[in-house]
Amino acid sequence: MRQVVMHGPGNVRVEDREDPNIVEPTDAIIRLSATCICGSDLWPYRGAEPVDHQVMGHEYVGVVEEVGSDVRNVKVGDFVVGSFWASDNTCEICQAGYQAYCVHRVLMGTIGTQSERARIPLADGTLVATPGMPDPDLIPSLMAASDVLGTGWFAAVAAEAGPGKTVAVVGDGAVGLLGILAARQLGAERIIAFSRHTDRQALAKEFGATDIVEERGDDGVARVKDLTDGLGAHSVIEAVGTQEAMMQAIRSTRPGGHVGFVGVSHDVAIPGDELFMAGVHIHGGPAPVRQYLPELVQLIWDRKIDPGKVFDLTLPLDRAAEGYRAMDQRTATKVLLTV
Amino acid sequence: MRQVVMHGPGNVRVEDREDPNIVEPTDAIIRLSATCICGSDLWPYRGAEPVDHQVMGHEYVGVVEEVGSDVRNVKVGDFVVGSFWASDNTCEICQAGYQAYCVHRVLMGTIGTQSERARIPLADGTLVATPGMPDPDLIPSLMAASDVLGTGWFAAVAAEAGPGKTVAVVGDGAVGLLGILAARQLGAERIIAFSRHTDRQALAKEFGATDIVEERGDDGVARVKDLTDGLGAHSVIEAVGTQEAMMQAIRSTRPGGHVGFVGVSHDVAIPGDELFMAGVHIHGGPAPVRQYLPELVQLIWDRKIDPGKVFDLTLPLDRAAEGYRAMDQRTATKVLLTV
Repeated sequence: MRQVVMHGPGNVRVEDREDPNIVEPTDAIIRLSATCICGSDLWPYRGAEPVDHQVMGHEYVGVVEEVGSDVRNVKVGDFVVGSFWASDNTCEICQAGYQAYCVHRVLMGTIGTQSERARIPLADGTLVATPGMPDPDLIPSLMAASDVLGTGWFAAVAAEAGPGKTVAVVGDGAVGLLGILAARQLGAERIIAFSRHTDRQALAKEFGATDIVEERGDDGVARVKDLTDGLGAHSVIEAVGTQEAMMQAIRSTRPGGHVGFVGVSHDVAIPGDELFMAGVHIHGGPAPVRQYLPELVQLIWDRKIDPGKVFDLTLPLDRAAEGYRAMDQRTATKVLLTV
Repeated sequence: MRQVVMHGPGNVRVEDREDPNIVEPTDAIIRLSATCICGSDLWPYRGAEPVDHQVMGHEYVGVVEEVGSDVRNVKVGDFVVGSFWASDNTCEICQAGYQAYCVHRVLMGTIGTQSERARIPLADGTLVATPGMPDPDLIPSLMAASDVLGTGWFAAVAAEAGPGKTVAVVGDGAVGLLGILAARQLGAERIIAFSRHTDRQALAKEFGATDIVEERGDDGVARVKDLTDGLGAHSVIEAVGTQEAMMQAIRSTRPGGHVGFVGVSHDVAIPGDELFMAGVHIHGGPAPVRQYLPELVQLIWDRKIDPGKVFDLTLPLDRAAEGYRAMDQRTATKVLLTV
């Protein structure tokens, strides 16, 4: 089968690799319909994380081709969506809703889903089948549910977005944009998007943003304070992962408010004294996407949300290198790879 | 009147100062029955915060002697307890339960309550009257409600202590010990106290601790994991304010669990990547004690809790310097000053 391998920073190739096989009786093998490139894939691409002949990709939708002898919840022929963490969905941590920390978790990035086929460990706990075979136009949205929508949703939940709340969103990438969509679905009254890109501003508004702030850092914080009687937002989503973004999020939040952070933190250090005086709640990390998947799949199936709009470039798997380049150079927000 | 003044690090004196007067129509003047020395008073005492002829103290109970023309909720002769932040209790932030961040807040430490009398700004929003004149043996517990009990309570609430939960408490000072009492009152199933002092271990158990861990740092974390099926505690209280204590708290918490931190952070920096991978909630800061005061006063009045036991040294106000010395040298956990 064809699979994406990152040989080193900036060096992405699509190669012939062996087809996956069932290893554990809880495994399933899927034939992918689509996969995509994640913002976090850019960290090794840019040399900010080590990489050496690494298979890539952790987002996937597709059709079940084979199941292990212990698999009960999905069957051959099902169209399925799964999270970037395989999880048993039965351990105490999963039952508490934190499947990204399942005691048996497997990071799908170590398996690599930018490929024609993939082995999915813990298939019963990981995969969610759609009600039937989806229309082709639903594939991008179901693809988004696998990570960026689930992550944006978790960020909005962690930020306690809800009725009567003002939500601010730091980061206008796919996750930030879908955090806006999630906040709107969760009933937020007002949604302030930080963005200085015209096309992303337009999508932010389409997803539910009521206000756009182009300023960043402390100037951006001042604008949020202006818009909230000097108090700050109730809920702030941090979807970047830099020191500036984290501090912008904390400082934009009112005392007692909530920061939901899902940007993969690089060289971030939160000063304890400032956090102490801020009086905000902070929660984040790798999203427990599996918790939200049944609800998200249904919302997409019923055409109540259209998160697939974050994909602004679609390429066949064999042209993955172009997709990485486009995201690195920010000519694309999020790249879908068809298989 | 007599009042404590810290001339410089290690230099505490009790001096004759002018009696306070009503300044704003929302003020009250109280004659103190007791005051006390806070762990946070040791930071300037030890030179870790600047100090120059500063009035000291922010905890207080006493009898109202005079009220401004706008005061409605308390009257002359009432016995009252208040928080270390004066708050209007009507602004949007107060109404959300974060009175320590009231838009009109006044830090009582700038007024100084280690004194015979004190001006209390925003008396209606700040003071809570007891049902009558308290028996003398209730004074230490009511005194504790003003800060250490309210702070320990907030820490337990921030850590989401409750039925079925395992709570770990980092710090065996007065706040940590009262965090244990609070966790027990909130229904926690199991309470792990980090402590290596025999007398504090005994009080921890009396307040509700079910397990004592003497190890600190990563060894202490390993012990908590051993006690919780390898998962970590659901709820962890951080009541110290150092880097080691904060990391011990975060690492003792299971994914999806909650850290409530009330130690005044000094030179603490939380690594973003570790916080991201930990998946815990963090919330803390100066406690909104006023939110809990009515409930805490009633619990004390009904003799359901006895937080006054944290005071292990009682001195008259004029011997305040001895009290600072005892707390600095850790021969006393918490010093009550009678007025």
